[in-house]
Amino acid sequence: MPVAGKAGESGRSTDRPRLSGVLAPVLTPFRSDLSPDAARFTRHCRWLLSQGCAGLAVFGTTSEANSLSVDEREALLEELLRAGIDPARLLPGTGCCALTDTVRLTRAAVRAGCAGVLMLPPFYYKGVSDDGLFRSFAEVIERVGDARLRVYLYHIPPVAQVGFSVKLVERLVSAYPRSVVGMKDSSGDWNNTKAMLDAFAQSGFDVFAGSERFLLANLRHGGAGCITATGNVNAAAIDRLFREWRTPGAEQLQEELNGVRGAFEKHPVIPALKAIVAHYTGDAAWRATRPPLVELPAPQAEALLGDLRRLRFEMPGVSA
Amino acid sequence: MPVAGKAGESGRSTDRPRLSGVLAPVLTPFRSDLSPDAARFTRHCRWLLSQGCAGLAVFGTTSEANSLSVDEREALLEELLRAGIDPARLLPGTGCCALTDTVRLTRAAVRAGCAGVLMLPPFYYKGVSDDGLFRSFAEVIERVGDARLRVYLYHIPPVAQVGFSVKLVERLVSAYPRSVVGMKDSSGDWNNTKAMLDAFAQSGFDVFAGSERFLLANLRHGGAGCITATGNVNAAAIDRLFREWRTPGAEQLQEELNGVRGAFEKHPVIPALKAIVAHYTGDAAWRATRPPLVELPAPQAEALLGDLRRLRFEMPGVSA
Repeated sequence: MPVAGKAGESGRSTDRPRLSGVLAPVLTPFRSDLSPDAARFTRHCRWLLSQGCAGLAVFGTTSEANSLSVDEREALLEELLRAGIDPARLLPGTGCCALTDTVRLTRAAVRAGCAGVLMLPPFYYKGVSDDGLFRSFAEVIERVGDARLRVYLYHIPPVAQVGFSVKLVERLVSAYPRSVVGMKDSSGDWNNTKAMLDAFAQSGFDVFAGSERFLLANLRHGGAGCITATGNVNAAAIDRLFREWRTPGAEQLQEELNGVRGAFEKHPVIPALKAIVAHYTGDAAWRATRPPLVELPAPQAEALLGDLRRLRFEMPGVSA
Repeated sequence: MPVAGKAGESGRSTDRPRLSGVLAPVLTPFRSDLSPDAARFTRHCRWLLSQGCAGLAVFGTTSEANSLSVDEREALLEELLRAGIDPARLLPGTGCCALTDTVRLTRAAVRAGCAGVLMLPPFYYKGVSDDGLFRSFAEVIERVGDARLRVYLYHIPPVAQVGFSVKLVERLVSAYPRSVVGMKDSSGDWNNTKAMLDAFAQSGFDVFAGSERFLLANLRHGGAGCITATGNVNAAAIDRLFREWRTPGAEQLQEELNGVRGAFEKHPVIPALKAIVAHYTGDAAWRATRPPLVELPAPQAEALLGDLRRLRFEMPGVSA
């Protein structure tokens, strides 16, 4: 498990604490005209930090970030900073299909003092070579050209289709040991996460599981935590496992987390999360998604609420 | 086969001629710093029109358009117009992951007087519902809110993964008969193209094949032509089949087109096309691709050139 500010192997950066623990890929609320709602967004970020989130992976898949323009993402980041959210807790998603967009968003995040960026590979073309992907990341890192840059590679082949092989990660870490410092593995495949941990965790590369289902296993194998959609509603319980993973109760905590996650996984997860936030905040506007996603139908939301109540799920202190 | 300005069924727009024939998804040349090269781009567009291209599907998959920012696409379109390219010959790609980007590019194309737009569905999220896709297109059409808008649906599941079912097309055409006027089918599956033709061609909906391999079959079943990557280098021959498809020599022309296409398909097609344009223009700068694509290695380019020479391939009148 990475320790904040530990001495870095392989020339890794040691100047600032690195994120570890539970990160939420923050849901993006929309107004009725589908424009991003910065006020609700900021309130949700504050609540997540109060619940034990180590960091906020704003502009991730769960955030519908690829449904936002670059201008919209930049404006939302500025709003968060203006509202006093500590940039050292922020890990914005910045990977786009277009090199120039990725550079622009990454540069803005670095200049804002963000803890790092979570970078998708360019995901339009399929079956691209590791050479092409290496070149993509190399171009971004060189163009940003800032020693403060910390890239977390975002591996989510079920959605992006384009992902990272162990060899590609190795090449990137070798070429840019101070910049390429970790990854989020949302493959849903523990064997892949374990392969990444086996290859890189010892050298101080921070592997985050993309789901709390793998949190305990990830921590036992030297991982850094998890960045998980359900962190938007269940961060306190997930953080508890992160803090208590060496205790005898850890397996039981993992089971409880799996129960809540399983309830959400019966539905399209992003609309389901928004429906639950809408319910517990009493703020129906939270239900809105941008197309191509659609809101969770009311009967499904009711069924999910029923499942969650049976699991004694709560969202303590949340408000509209 | 659609006839320019024919009386439209189902309330279809009859005010302006519609595109039919061969369209090239125009390659985007880059400078050594990977910025788009408007001067080379304009020259290539002029050459394509001189070769019989009915239109220019700028900013398609072959154009690496999703590797360009929205600003870069807007600037390139403005350069083309400034250089005197007739907007009535332009069918720019405008479909992005983000609703707001798609609206912005589509609005710019309509205001510029473009013949239409070729619109990808939002392609980040996979497994999205037809409801969500319908809502995406409906939002764009309503937000653009311009009677001049003509949308051609861009179906390319091998790349975008997200595509159009016959039912979705039917719903879009029913809701927006004056705006949703055609499609490009790059499924590579003739059965799918035929299903679209059977369902919609009679009512004046223009189905373009995504490859000249299907040009003759497409025309025989009421299609409008093809929008094809190899149109960038072989437009004159493809246009000849379009003009002569009812003649006894048509099958032979189709065979010859297939031979040239087959030579390109042995390689990654976009880098291969760029290598061939570089060769015939004598302008090596044409080889550059933006990551994640990589240039065609020299030995592959040589092999391709050899294949093309054996097929008596030419690029008449092309220049640097």
